[in-house]
Amino acid sequence: MKLLITGGAGFLGARLAREILQKGELCGQAIDELHIADLFPAPADLLADPRVHSHAGPMMTQSSLFETGFDGVFHLASAVSGECELDFDLGLRSNLDSTRCLLDGLRKAGNVPRMVFASSVAVFGPDPSNPMPDRVADNTLPSPQTSYGTHKLMLEYLVADYTRKGYIDGRSARLMTVAVRPGKPNGAASSFFSGIIREPLAGVDTVCPVDASVSHAVSSPGKTIQGLMTVFEATREAMGGRMALNLPGLNITVSEMLQALEDVAGPEVRQRVKFVRNEQIAAIVANWAKGGTADRALALGLKPDASYKDIIAQYIADCAQPHYPEGALKGLRH
Amino acid sequence: MKLLITGGAGFLGARLAREILQKGELCGQAIDELHIADLFPAPADLLADPRVHSHAGPMMTQSSLFETGFDGVFHLASAVSGECELDFDLGLRSNLDSTRCLLDGLRKAGNVPRMVFASSVAVFGPDPSNPMPDRVADNTLPSPQTSYGTHKLMLEYLVADYTRKGYIDGRSARLMTVAVRPGKPNGAASSFFSGIIREPLAGVDTVCPVDASVSHAVSSPGKTIQGLMTVFEATREAMGGRMALNLPGLNITVSEMLQALEDVAGPEVRQRVKFVRNEQIAAIVANWAKGGTADRALALGLKPDASYKDIIAQYIADCAQPHYPEGALKGLRH
Repeated sequence: MKLLITGGAGFLGARLAREILQKGELCGQAIDELHIADLFPAPADLLADPRVHSHAGPMMTQSSLFETGFDGVFHLASAVSGECELDFDLGLRSNLDSTRCLLDGLRKAGNVPRMVFASSVAVFGPDPSNPMPDRVADNTLPSPQTSYGTHKLMLEYLVADYTRKGYIDGRSARLMTVAVRPGKPNGAASSFFSGIIREPLAGVDTVCPVDASVSHAVSSPGKTIQGLMTVFEATREAMGGRMALNLPGLNITVSEMLQALEDVAGPEVRQRVKFVRNEQIAAIVANWAKGGTADRALALGLKPDASYKDIIAQYIADCAQPHYPEGALKGLRH
Repeated sequence: MKLLITGGAGFLGARLAREILQKGELCGQAIDELHIADLFPAPADLLADPRVHSHAGPMMTQSSLFETGFDGVFHLASAVSGECELDFDLGLRSNLDSTRCLLDGLRKAGNVPRMVFASSVAVFGPDPSNPMPDRVADNTLPSPQTSYGTHKLMLEYLVADYTRKGYIDGRSARLMTVAVRPGKPNGAASSFFSGIIREPLAGVDTVCPVDASVSHAVSSPGKTIQGLMTVFEATREAMGGRMALNLPGLNITVSEMLQALEDVAGPEVRQRVKFVRNEQIAAIVANWAKGGTADRALALGLKPDASYKDIIAQYIADCAQPHYPEGALKGLRH
């Protein structure tokens, strides 16, 4: 199988690449070539694998790559929510136009590749004429409140139409908020969901900008990657329809997240989180779904993380890996 | 007011232009200039009005026009459903790319024009994971089954996002099937809804390709134009949310349409319609909504046509107008 991962140099994309290379196959077909298209070159550990080919640069310049005929595609490349709000043209270009370029390249190749498009829970939002349920479901009517969510939703429908026409075998998986992300805060409004776990574990004081009662759907990186791979391997019949589906998330409050942190790492670590309300972030978060359901993903055998303690334990275990920052756990007493 | 109608040389667009010119104002502002952008030049009667400026050519070539600063825009230009199914690239270009060009021109002008985007009941469709109700409502989850419906839906969300960002004051009105259209059959799968009335009235035998029990939501040209103008004039508050809304339609079966034809024109005229099932058209129509509701449009004061007899009477009255084909009523005994 000749596979393409767009955004494959990013945190999730590189993790997906590692999982797939380790598994060695998808849908029973060996991974012969894994191409990574990203603004940046693939990480060194991936480049060291002879199956990996790294293509650095904007997607809009890579149409000839896309036309070479892939058997499978994971399309993760995207400008994130905060970037799109700050730079409207960047969002249109990096999300809409780049995906058009990818889809048309795949269509020109003519071999109907299977494709998973990474959509987002950001397609949902409140609207005066469309109240949002506390738990957004596969078939909840979307009302995106950001350009990012708007583009993701538009592309879900475009992927469905390319699939209906027989140009690709596409499916869209809506990612919940992924935590715990390693590294530095990334400026996204959701960044604190990782920060309130990651910083205390590194011995760094941090701030939670919203009330402890705020509820959200989160997914560990591991479960998220498993979700993308399962949706890729699912038959059309098992997908049960061509609409996008929600990936499972653990519905949990900030207060419960911090209790889990205390349970895993002790009260001293938890006390490194102070509540300092940020009205701007609180207003954005107030527009987000309080939680989600994922009936169709569950029917594919996927499950959310069992508990937030599991999610924190996964992060702690991950920190032993070479591509995680040093000192990430220096706030833990061993 | 400086107004733009895209697709303004077409049947609906030209009728909209005539209504607006006759009314002389929108939102209490006099119509100083009415610009018509269309592949074709505006009809002669419109060109004779000193307020009318006709811009013929593809929308993608008219970005400098769009940047000149309009106060209001009706965006009706579109490749139709059948065309988009036959030529996928034409659909992407004529619907998605052209609208992007329009929206970015309006955004560059910087004066936040009010805009009505003509969307379509074609955004709805059946899907295994999303059964379609018999009557599609404002908040029914769309599942388009054509590229045309896909593009209309994507653009509803893009118009909403440009509006959220303050670049335009946009709203999307989903048109029901418009009948009775004058002239020749246009190759659209819905063409027979007009044909089974228009041809018998012209003394021409015609064929109904679907069962008499087929149910559909239809709207006269007059009510449709009224809907577009009312949605344009509605305040943001009256719209009650930024999502697209359904325009009202009369929910009616083919059998009831033909009974209305007999009531208006007599049994001889009705007998010019023969039922010859066309499996291809019947299969397409089976994917369409059997009817619609339009609660938010009703709240704006809009109403569907009261009866199909009214719709036929409107067509008969319209046939006296100079831009209707001669002989359109020669099947009627006077």
